[in-house]
Parts: sequence; C-alpha cells; structure tokens
Amino acid sequence: MRQVAILGIGQTNIDEHWEKSLREIGGEAAFLALQDAGVEKVDALFVGNMLSPLVDGQNQLGTFLADWVGMWHQEAVKIEAACGSGAAAFRSGLMAVASGDIDSALVVGVEKMTDKAGHDVTAALATAADADYEVEQGVSFVGLNALIMRRYMHEYGWQHADFAPFSINAHANAMSNPFARLHDRITVEQFERSAMVATPINLLDASPIGDGAAAAVLVPAEKVTTFPGRPRLLVAGSSASTDSIAVHSRKDPLFLSAAYQSAKRAYEMAGVNAEDIDVFELHDAFSIMSALSLEACGFAERGQGIRLGLDNEIGPQGRIPICTRGGLKARGHPVGATGMYQIVEVAQQLRSECGDTQVADARVGMAQNIGGSGATILTHILKAG
Amino acid sequence: MRQVAILGIGQTNIDEHWEKSLREIGGEAAFLALQDAGVEKVDALFVGNMLSPLVDGQNQLGTFLADWVGMWHQEAVKIEAACGSGAAAFRSGLMAVASGDIDSALVVGVEKMTDKAGHDVTAALATAADADYEVEQGVSFVGLNALIMRRYMHEYGWQHADFAPFSINAHANAMSNPFARLHDRITVEQFERSAMVATPINLLDASPIGDGAAAAVLVPAEKVTTFPGRPRLLVAGSSASTDSIAVHSRKDPLFLSAAYQSAKRAYEMAGVNAEDIDVFELHDAFSIMSALSLEACGFAERGQGIRLGLDNEIGPQGRIPICTRGGLKARGHPVGATGMYQIVEVAQQLRSECGDTQVADARVGMAQNIGGSGATILTHILKAG
Repeated sequence: MRQVAILGIGQTNIDEHWEKSLREIGGEAAFLALQDAGVEKVDALFVGNMLSPLVDGQNQLGTFLADWVGMWHQEAVKIEAACGSGAAAFRSGLMAVASGDIDSALVVGVEKMTDKAGHDVTAALATAADADYEVEQGVSFVGLNALIMRRYMHEYGWQHADFAPFSINAHANAMSNPFARLHDRITVEQFERSAMVATPINLLDASPIGDGAAAAVLVPAEKVTTFPGRPRLLVAGSSASTDSIAVHSRKDPLFLSAAYQSAKRAYEMAGVNAEDIDVFELHDAFSIMSALSLEACGFAERGQGIRLGLDNEIGPQGRIPICTRGGLKARGHPVGATGMYQIVEVAQQLRSECGDTQVADARVGMAQNIGGSGATILTHILKAG
Repeated sequence: MRQVAILGIGQTNIDEHWEKSLREIGGEAAFLALQDAGVEKVDALFVGNMLSPLVDGQNQLGTFLADWVGMWHQEAVKIEAACGSGAAAFRSGLMAVASGDIDSALVVGVEKMTDKAGHDVTAALATAADADYEVEQGVSFVGLNALIMRRYMHEYGWQHADFAPFSINAHANAMSNPFARLHDRITVEQFERSAMVATPINLLDASPIGDGAAAAVLVPAEKVTTFPGRPRLLVAGSSASTDSIAVHSRKDPLFLSAAYQSAKRAYEMAGVNAEDIDVFELHDAFSIMSALSLEACGFAERGQGIRLGLDNEIGPQGRIPICTRGGLKARGHPVGATGMYQIVEVAQQLRSECGDTQVADARVGMAQNIGGSGATILTHILKAG
C-alpha cells in the first residue's frame, strides 16, 4: 500500500461544552487541523463518533460535519466502533488514501455527551456491550471492568493501591496540557479514599467523559514537502483486531487478545518491536486497562503490568512513557473522539511540542484505542522521518 | 488503486423477522455470501447499519457481527451514513482491499427495525435529517420528501398519477424475487386511491421498512480464478458525494447534486457513460426520488425523469431498467442494508440469475444508495468481465 503521512493536527479542549453544539466542536478541530496542515480543501472526511444518535439525535454525522465545514460534494462518512471509533475512522481515512482513490483525508473524532443526564449516558455507553447477553443482565460498562479488575487482583495478588501510579501519572501529565479535562495532581491517599463506583473501581480509577474533538489531515507521504521545520509523520503501522463482545465469552478475560493481535500486526508493518516504542498513548478508560494493555503489547509479563507503574517506568522519562498528555484518565474520554486525541498526542510528541511532558528524542510513537471491554482494538504506530 | 472484484453474494428475505435477532439476520447473509464465494475466512468485516443503537440498543456492530460469525481477531468496523450505510460500508471494504493492506473483505448491510412501534422508527429515521434545523421543527423524513415532490409537481406541471409507473414497475419486478418484502401487483387506480401519508406522498409512493441483510465478499480481481461458469464481477466504479443535510440549505432542492457528482466520478472511473448502463438499481425510497435520480445521473433532462416511466422505458426490457428486483418500493427498505441489497441485485443481473426480470445481456450495472434526503450519495458500477 502507498505510504501515508499526517500533514496536520488539531484538537479542542475537553470540557462540558454547553455553549457549543456538536457541529461547532467537530468543526473547530477540523479547521485547526486544516490550518495546521496549510490546506483549505481535502478529498474526503471520515468522522469517528459513538453516541450522537443516542445523545444528540443526529445520525449521518460524516455528511453533517462535511456540511458544516463547507465540504459539499466531497465524500463523507461516519465510522463507529464504540470507544474505538476515533482510531477506526483514522484507519478508514488511511485505507482510502493508501488505496490511491483519494489524495487527502480529514479525520475527525468528535463527541458531545454532557448535555444528557449521567444515567442516560451510562445507558448509552452500555450499547457497546452485548445487548442480548450482557446489558440484559443490567451490567454497565464500569461494572464489566470492575469484574475484570477484581479477577486480576485475585489472580496476581495485587492490592487496589498498586494501581495508583497509573492515575497519578495521568493526572500529573495533564497539568501542562491545555486541552485536558482535569488539571489537578492526585496522591496515593486521595486515590485510596476516592468514592467507590463499582467495587473495586473507584472514581480515581475511572476516566471522565466530556465533550471534545480531535482531527488530523492525511496525505500520501511523498506529497509532504512543506513545513521544513517539522519532521514528516509517517503512519508506519496500522491494524485492527477484535474479540468477543461479551466478556464472559472470552477464553481468558485477563488477556486483551485483540490488543496483542493488533499490536503484533502494527509492529510487523512498521518494522519495529515493543522496545522501539518511545511513547505509548494507551486506552486507560479504567486503571485496570493500563495494566492489561501494557501486558498485551509486550511491555510486561502477564500480571506484571502494574509493576511498570510501581517502578516509575511510565512517566515521560521512564522506560515506556504512557498517557503523556493525561490519558483518558485526566485528558478526558469523549468516547468517539478519544482515538483521535491519542493520535494527535503521539504526533505532538514526535513534533516535540509537549513541554513539561515531552519524551526526549521521541521518534516512534504508538496509539492504541479500545472499543468495548477489549472487543475492538486498533493500534497505530507513527514514525518521525 | 488495485482492481477489486465481488467473489460472492448473499441476502435474506426482507420481512418482519420477529423470530430472528439482529445478529442472526446479519449472520445469515454473511454465511450465504461466504458460501457463495467458496471461502471460509476473510481478513475483515465491514458492516453497514443505521439504526441499531436506537432500535436495538446495540453499538459496535462490526465486532458484534464478527463475534457471531466466528471472526475473532479479524478486523471489524461499522459504517453509518443513514440510509446510505450499506453502500458506504461496501466502499470502505473496497478501499481496504484496494489499498493492499487486506486481501479479502466481507461487507454486510443489516437492519432490524420492526420490533419497535412505528412512531419510534419514524423518530429514529428522522435522525438522518438535521437535528438542529429540521427535526427541531417537527419535520419527518416523509414530510421532507413530500415538500420536494410537491415542488417538483409545481415546477414541471406533473400530476400525482404520473408517478404511478415507478411504483407499478417496482411491484411487478418484485413478484419473482423471493427475497422481496411485497409480492402484489398494483394498478394506477390503486396507486391513486392509496392512503395519504404526507400530501402528495401516499402509501404507494413510499417504500416499506423491514428487517433484512445483504452481503458480498470482495477480493483483488487477479485472485478471482474460481467459478469458471460465472463472469468475474469487477467493481469498476465507486464514488461518494455529499450535499447539505438540511434540504432548505440547497441551492436547488430538485436537483440531487450529490447524485450527479458521485455518478459522474463513478462513470469516469469505470470508463463508461450513462448510455452504457444496462441496469440501474436506484434509491426509490419515495417515487419522487426515482425521477430525481434518473435526472441527476444523466438518463433524463431536468423535470423529465417521470417521462421514462410513462414511456415504458424503466422495465427490464426498457431503455434503462430500474428496480429490477423490486427496488426499495417492493423489495423493501431495511435502511442500513438497502445499499448492499442494491449491489447484490446488480451482481445477480450480471450473473443472469434474475429469471422473469433478467435484463438481456446485462454487462454493466449501477447501484446508487442515498442517505438522508439526498445528503450522502454513493454510486457503484459493476462490470462483468
């Protein structure tokens, strides 16, 4: 396939944007990415979104947003893969440019979810689980993750406090990210005393929802000749993999096999190994997911992902820096937009634009976006070069 | 881009399938297509669906269906473009195979919408319109089409009965299609006396919703060496275009500019003109849409699409056969699946499997799928060769 590069990126801050509509939020990120890329027009728009039919009463979001940003008569489409929608849209845009059928693509991940009451959003998020076999039993998303976390603690003998470094690192990294939802450092004591949500997951294990959008412009790599001051951002690896939707159907609920598969394929495509990854934006919707992702992607043995946090290896100067802009935990988790935030953040690292949390000499970065409790997993590897 | 071909097709009958779940319907079409293709496994699954979050409480439908058909660890994603979701999923699968990143794709359009009450489905369908500027005013989908139809009759001086040939042709063609939702011939008198829905659209101007799924397997054209008895079905043209979501924002609501654009690009890609098209599966959600589609795609002058019906040119032996398996009007309109039914039906025509409604020597066929009231339009051209 034809090599593709990221020409520009854009993002809005994540917040409760009651003053802005869905189209305004998405349009803001879109225009920022176009401006950053130095182009006015692209061939097609790919929108990642999960909840707009349920929360905003709007379908056909690809064309909806194309209309708003003035892309009449251009191609537009929406891609949905639950909380993996952002990266899924990125991969769709990538395939289209890689095929040669189009020469440029704008990818926008957007979500506006705070206009509804919390229980409505919880119910909407549950549509990512299996409606027939899981949701029917009354299980929520945090409930499913709580079952996984409890089993993990039982199998490997970890205590709840052992998960603290993931949340502490995320909150610390978000401090210098102006787009982050939360700007407050937390301590182990706060982590332990935080309100319980679904045992053993408490408030500081969980990522906050929010309204936001992040975007990128994709073009064939050979066309990237502008911006001599910036490295060229190659999309070196891209892969999607799946597992059963229902957690109870998996052979081993403590192993993210779709993360393993998609990372493996992405590594092969990019010609790298786990040790070559300088920065890893992983999908820490709940602290347990950080541990499982690190293990599935080859950074730790089974049951030992926790140790990377305890050993101080996940900070910007650690062995494998994760959530360098705050992760889902503190940057925020506007579900269908999250995958695009991750890609934008990896791009920022490779462009050395991350200030206090800049990873030194970052040349290879990975973003991994998860839909459902590990059901749809997409991995992208970017290279500066 | 790499040339892609359809290796196999499958479809379920369209009905009120109260006895089958969403996954069973989608899985049935998927297995039929795989069986028809003679393969057991493909690299990725692309699912077209519009309403499952709203009507079935299920998101992440790509992985949901991959799980059901045993495609664990394979890529899966859902594409949504309102009633254009089916063709949008087909185009996504096409791009992925054309890029060279994957070597085979299964595309399934699926919708299960009759479990809910009619007013719930009407509200769900309205999410394809502009939530802020159209739906807020209380307008429904049939209401928007009624406004367009009334304006068309006013501008060009046609009477309601002049639209009858479109519905009569569709119903007649569905008689020999075992997968069709309706099997009853209709007359001009019945068409005129049918119950009013939204003036001037009556029940026989409108297509019935339903539950159903249609699927196809895509592979690189050079790999199609099996099935010596069948022609190779090349995807010769593919294009998507858009217009403003809100009908009132269009310069001319009587011209489907996105249909014009996407057909133009698809013709160019396939190296054909309108006169080369042997069969045209168009998106007759309402009879007015048949007229507008024929005009936008170059088969009639503005305001004269009606004449093709009145002149008996749209039947299987006419100048431009449309809706040869019943169209949306009589085959039925399971919204997110419709685009895949159209592609499957064009494939059937090129394979000479259409019995009573077979178009003689059909070599080049076109399918056009519309999302919203002309907002997202996708055109595909298949060639036997």
